[in-house]
Amino acid sequence: MLDVLIIGGGPAGLSSAVYAKRAGLSVTVLDKGASECQITKATEVENYLGFKSISGIDLHAQFVEHAKSQEIPIIKKSVVSVEKTEEGFKVFTKKDEFECKHLILAMGRSHKHLGVEGEDRLAGAGVSYCATCDGFFFRSKMVSVIGGGDSAVSQAIYLSAFCEKVYLIHRRDEFRAANYLVERAREKNNIEFVLNATVNEILGDNCVAGVSITQGEETRTIACDGVFGAVGEKPNMSFVIDGLNISPQGQIITDKYCRTNINGLYAVGDIRDRDVYQIITAVADGALVVEGILKE
Amino acid sequence: MLDVLIIGGGPAGLSSAVYAKRAGLSVTVLDKGASECQITKATEVENYLGFKSISGIDLHAQFVEHAKSQEIPIIKKSVVSVEKTEEGFKVFTKKDEFECKHLILAMGRSHKHLGVEGEDRLAGAGVSYCATCDGFFFRSKMVSVIGGGDSAVSQAIYLSAFCEKVYLIHRRDEFRAANYLVERAREKNNIEFVLNATVNEILGDNCVAGVSITQGEETRTIACDGVFGAVGEKPNMSFVIDGLNISPQGQIITDKYCRTNINGLYAVGDIRDRDVYQIITAVADGALVVEGILKE
Repeated sequence: MLDVLIIGGGPAGLSSAVYAKRAGLSVTVLDKGASECQITKATEVENYLGFKSISGIDLHAQFVEHAKSQEIPIIKKSVVSVEKTEEGFKVFTKKDEFECKHLILAMGRSHKHLGVEGEDRLAGAGVSYCATCDGFFFRSKMVSVIGGGDSAVSQAIYLSAFCEKVYLIHRRDEFRAANYLVERAREKNNIEFVLNATVNEILGDNCVAGVSITQGEETRTIACDGVFGAVGEKPNMSFVIDGLNISPQGQIITDKYCRTNINGLYAVGDIRDRDVYQIITAVADGALVVEGILKE
Repeated sequence: MLDVLIIGGGPAGLSSAVYAKRAGLSVTVLDKGASECQITKATEVENYLGFKSISGIDLHAQFVEHAKSQEIPIIKKSVVSVEKTEEGFKVFTKKDEFECKHLILAMGRSHKHLGVEGEDRLAGAGVSYCATCDGFFFRSKMVSVIGGGDSAVSQAIYLSAFCEKVYLIHRRDEFRAANYLVERAREKNNIEFVLNATVNEILGDNCVAGVSITQGEETRTIACDGVFGAVGEKPNMSFVIDGLNISPQGQIITDKYCRTNINGLYAVGDIRDRDVYQIITAVADGALVVEGILKE
């Protein structure tokens, strides 16, 4: 039986593996592949200290190489179910079964897509889902933020500090976001609210040139260099764990050592309910979770 | 007036600077020099994800280079006092004065030294102060941990998972550590308690070979390959800030966004009261603190 099994081979999962291994625990990572891993979609990462500027794919490759250098097995398998046992957990993939004392969930979360023409084609070429990560690439430029919740309004405020102009495009006439955020956004003279607006398409050949929207009868183009999609996130939970405490948004609730409410079960990185979702905060969870496991 | 002034150019301070800069804030780092910065004393770092194995000095140099690539001024000056003003803070060095809206304290903490012969000479050559950081280099070897508090006993337990044998050397016959920790250490059959013992010297030519101790009348040598000093830590606070909430150990008390009890004043990294003291957790504070500043 493994001491630690980790589901998810992104930044949080791999850091947890390195910390577990170095604490003398036997550890294995199950990874379904990079397709859902957010880091691999980042064109350029400039805020992971130590790497001035690196693509998400290359940074993730460094992370994988680091884990492999410590002889941590990373098995390409997708988990279909998890069962609590007396000694820990049984984790089932299509054909195999793994047993472990401690199970760490590190599957991350995914951005909901706007679902409009141009979005996928221009991803990383002006289309982003994280102002903190990518905003700075658009300094002194025009950007649009699409959405109406806390995340959308916060991202608009964040961008207003250094972008020439920020359009905050929302399909309703009221925001779901907290009032104080909306008020703060209203005070910024370079944020323009574009309400009751449906986004038709993101325009541009090789990079974003604008957004086509419809307001009432009128269809028009907002010229901009960047589009930030902020219509929600969903945790990558493809199996059910009975009795697991989750937030209304589906994020796993943990304590400061990444412990869930189920004994021996941990969650790290973007899948857990947290305030800041950054590569560096996900990686730091590796140190926290292993401290938690050693305290068990 | 600067948006953000950071005192301390270690991992936490530099990461805060990068996040602040990328949020469009004006930022400067005051750094008294590497002499007190713990990362520069690490011979080998293997748990900062992305760098398989790197010396602390080299890793810190990468961090500095990263900050400089974002045109963040790092000024070599030592702070002598801080004054709260209506708009923020005035920070005084011997000859200069800086004004800022938000002040981030990032001065780190230092290990108390054992104060015995051989300790400085063999630092990084078998003498360490952090089992989580360096323990793995001593797998299947003999180590001594010196101290009697939670940290000493926890480090002994941590090391017992993969070291051949762990001597827990303490100068009294009772531990200050929590009972449950002492009990857990007692259950490990490769931890030997060496009580009422004074350490005279750490022995070894180029690397640690043992510890000379005196128990009662008897002086003897414990042969070992590593010595972990765990006799306490002290935050690097060389000036006083009136009314600042600190823990009994002198660490600065903060919330989840690294906010202190004083408006506009933040603390990041090892100087704040926290559960895990690692490079990666200090660096992650950079993302948290800037989120906090943007919420002000």
